[in-house]
Amino acid sequence: MSIKNLVSLGLLVFIPISVAAEYLHWDALVVFVTSAIAIIPLAIWLSTATEEVAVATGPSIGGLLNAVFGNATELIIALSALRAGLVDIVKASITGTIISNLLLVMGLSMFLGGLRYKEQEFQPIVARVSGSTMTLAVTAIVLPAMVISTSNVVDPVAISRLSITVAIVLIVVYALTLLFSLKTHSYLYDVGVVELEEGATEAAHVEHKTNLPLWIGVLLIATIAVAFESEIFVGAVEEATKGLGLTPLFTGVILLPLVGGAAEYVTAVRVAIKNNMDLSVSVAMGSSLLVALLVAPVLVLIGQAIGQPMDLSFNLFEVVAVTIAVAIANLISLDGRSNWLEGVLLLATYTVLGAAFYFHPA
Amino acid sequence: MSIKNLVSLGLLVFIPISVAAEYLHWDALVVFVTSAIAIIPLAIWLSTATEEVAVATGPSIGGLLNAVFGNATELIIALSALRAGLVDIVKASITGTIISNLLLVMGLSMFLGGLRYKEQEFQPIVARVSGSTMTLAVTAIVLPAMVISTSNVVDPVAISRLSITVAIVLIVVYALTLLFSLKTHSYLYDVGVVELEEGATEAAHVEHKTNLPLWIGVLLIATIAVAFESEIFVGAVEEATKGLGLTPLFTGVILLPLVGGAAEYVTAVRVAIKNNMDLSVSVAMGSSLLVALLVAPVLVLIGQAIGQPMDLSFNLFEVVAVTIAVAIANLISLDGRSNWLEGVLLLATYTVLGAAFYFHPA
Amino acid sequence: MSIKNLVSLGLLVFIPISVAAEYLHWDALVVFVTSAIAIIPLAIWLSTATEEVAVATGPSIGGLLNAVFGNATELIIALSALRAGLVDIVKASITGTIISNLLLVMGLSMFLGGLRYKEQEFQPIVARVSGSTMTLAVTAIVLPAMVISTSNVVDPVAISRLSITVAIVLIVVYALTLLFSLKTHSYLYDVGVVELEEGATEAAHVEHKTNLPLWIGVLLIATIAVAFESEIFVGAVEEATKGLGLTPLFTGVILLPLVGGAAEYVTAVRVAIKNNMDLSVSVAMGSSLLVALLVAPVLVLIGQAIGQPMDLSFNLFEVVAVTIAVAIANLISLDGRSNWLEGVLLLATYTVLGAAFYFHPA
Repeated sequence: MSIKNLVSLGLLVFIPISVAAEYLHWDALVVFVTSAIAIIPLAIWLSTATEEVAVATGPSIGGLLNAVFGNATELIIALSALRAGLVDIVKASITGTIISNLLLVMGLSMFLGGLRYKEQEFQPIVARVSGSTMTLAVTAIVLPAMVISTSNVVDPVAISRLSITVAIVLIVVYALTLLFSLKTHSYLYDVGVVELEEGATEAAHVEHKTNLPLWIGVLLIATIAVAFESEIFVGAVEEATKGLGLTPLFTGVILLPLVGGAAEYVTAVRVAIKNNMDLSVSVAMGSSLLVALLVAPVLVLIGQAIGQPMDLSFNLFEVVAVTIAVAIANLISLDGRSNWLEGVLLLATYTVLGAAFYFHPA
Repeated sequence: MSIKNLVSLGLLVFIPISVAAEYLHWDALVVFVTSAIAIIPLAIWLSTATEEVAVATGPSIGGLLNAVFGNATELIIALSALRAGLVDIVKASITGTIISNLLLVMGLSMFLGGLRYKEQEFQPIVARVSGSTMTLAVTAIVLPAMVISTSNVVDPVAISRLSITVAIVLIVVYALTLLFSLKTHSYLYDVGVVELEEGATEAAHVEHKTNLPLWIGVLLIATIAVAFESEIFVGAVEEATKGLGLTPLFTGVILLPLVGGAAEYVTAVRVAIKNNMDLSVSVAMGSSLLVALLVAPVLVLIGQAIGQPMDLSFNLFEVVAVTIAVAIANLISLDGRSNWLEGVLLLATYTVLGAAFYFHPA
Repeated sequence: MSIKNLVSLGLLVFIPISVAAEYLHWDALVVFVTSAIAIIPLAIWLSTATEEVAVATGPSIGGLLNAVFGNATELIIALSALRAGLVDIVKASITGTIISNLLLVMGLSMFLGGLRYKEQEFQPIVARVSGSTMTLAVTAIVLPAMVISTSNVVDPVAISRLSITVAIVLIVVYALTLLFSLKTHSYLYDVGVVELEEGATEAAHVEHKTNLPLWIGVLLIATIAVAFESEIFVGAVEEATKGLGLTPLFTGVILLPLVGGAAEYVTAVRVAIKNNMDLSVSVAMGSSLLVALLVAPVLVLIGQAIGQPMDLSFNLFEVVAVTIAVAIANLISLDGRSNWLEGVLLLATYTVLGAAFYFHPA
């Protein structure tokens, strides 16, 4: 059993602890921290189960599964928070997930990978298509905020309708990117897929063969458990972070993505160290894209349905931060090569943005 | 006779209809729609005549002719609108033409071309030079707006002087880009030119040979007819669009470029489907550049002369939209390759921007 | 003796003239102009001495020397101005140095070089790493201004702490870029270094051999003389520029970098004309980076120490200008090729920005 699996199992002990903390009304900070730690192994199991089921069901259905369930943890946490009316935190966590994936995850991958390999390569065309799609996503995030800030009068109905229109366009584009990457231009993504399968094969060697019913079971249990834990987590988040002197903006942009995205972070960095930058970049960028093109618009539409309307009008500072993150990630990934300094630059940008969010009063 | 020519001829019937609508005082919307439709075939004839005369007069004078008359329809409509005092609509149509060419025209070309060809190629260096020039043009459009929005006091005289200075710099740069593309570095553009001539040769085959006096006649008549029709069109635009609940901003940015630019749209998409992406990209980018570097500054200078002063201080939202359009067009064209998904991304960006302009109250 | 050396010697006569002007209380404009002219040859000697000592001490220590003393003149002038409490001018001169190096110096180099050579080449990877680092620097410059402009309440303590945090991150990143370029990935920079040494060898031929003690002496004397002259210069700058109707913003962004950076301007253009674009681009970009990653943060920290606290919250218009400069410089240098038109585009952008700063009321 690998160290990763041992850790994932060990951390499961935080599930009962967090439940106890919640029902015995311990301090909100304790509930917050223990439920956050409890979510991490669940997210890793959820992600592992998705990958295993994806491999067993073949590249087409598997790709679709990965594309839809890939960020299930983020989506579940966001849905819990949305139901609890924490619209600002949910919106902040959307921009936060994009920023963390592009800067923290890709930065760590390029930095740690770059310490072992002088120069690492990946498919520039994949990075380029992702970069262009990401730019569209940023546009979608920028526009409602800009409509508001350049208007004298703000009409909430107009912003809401604009958000719904944009959400539908994004979902259509997401479906088309799947068609592109899984069907019409799948050969561009072949390298990554082959290596993904290799990784899976490796995993299969350890466990002898993929046990489909087992993994479907793990997938279901992990999904339910994440939902369950995320309720506890979300219930404590406001009180706990206020107690720490943190703003909802900082909580949503910096803290939440660390909890929800832990699984991808581990994967991306692990494969980068194995010199599989194609997969690493594709996990980091793919995760950002999934959140921007699927999670965010789905939340807009669900928000309308459950009476917690969420529009796409982000805080102007979030807009600036996402724009910076996408610009520097595009610039660095455009040529399909990376080295440790480029990792440092991404991490430094993340640090500087994090500091700015920390000191931002809003 | 080709379908395109038949359609161009058929649509000419809207000229008498629009004249009747105008003089019989029909509803403004009828005047607006019929004159808009009447302008489209005129613009196509004007553009065809320019190309034919350009081919007959050789690459140097021809290139110059194309460069100056290429967007004659846009210029004529803008001049009519400027004389009528519709400064806001004129300014909006400048940013709108840039946005439509980069997103709608290039998007349609890459999408429809990409449905037939898995991957299409074009000269990346031409795209790169155009992209850099476009970035300068955006700078010129961004600066006056930013001077205003970052100042406590706004001095209209200073903004006017800044606009005139910027206009002169842009015209000089435009002249130098002609020197570059037609003279010192014409070899970079050879592919496109050869293919342009091929296209013309093809046309010549149909009509046996280029009849220079005929086409000069068509050029003159079409120019006068466009001027004439654009007066009718401009006279009805305010009342008609207000009746439809559209803002001047939306009218200028989205509607006007569709009418004025129809000819280039048809050309760019047609050659893209024939896999001549060099010409397609060059038409779309060239048209944007012409508007930004020649039409806009000329309007500023003419506006001064005719007592309808127009400065370059665009609405902040237009500035954001143009910046987004140029950024994503640069990113997508930088590597000299395109596929259908990149077309979709450009079209989706156009849709999202269009929706934002539609819901923008200003 | 070369023309450059003759000019450098001849201009030294302005040192006594400026001293006389200062102590005889001549008009502030005379003091300002004569001390500005006096600084130029001193900056050239300082830069030449740094290079000579750097060559004599070998690539590692030499590279470090160049990296630290490369922009000594800018640093000394900025320190004098900071001590005199001219915080706004100091901040403006930081953005101004970045803008001038990327647009004016690189523009002149590409333009004049491009008049002699149809196409010039340089290492795209060096330009790319510099471009990404520059983007981080822009982020650091953008963020405090954006925190302020997107907050309802401005907490000066928070902005000050954010500035100090950012300053420390930037200095660490600067140290790591040195490690990268001088140690772990020095082979990427080899071309430039070889050519730098060739240039030095050429110089050595004229003077037979590098006289280390002599050049260390020149280095020390020039440093002290620049410090001395910059006190006179800074003392007159406010009164002189106000007399000319110039704002502190224009003075800091446009005038000061011309005085402080004259040495690099001459070097960059001279080597560009010799077709050594690697060195030319590296001087222009390196100089911008040095100011953004070392000079600016050091000034923040020193400002705290000497009781003239300077934060990194730049004027929003400066932020826009730096962003534009970095974007267009990145776009043009990304492919490792240049031609005269690209030089023109950079110069036109500089002209347009200069005009905007001139007409900006703030």
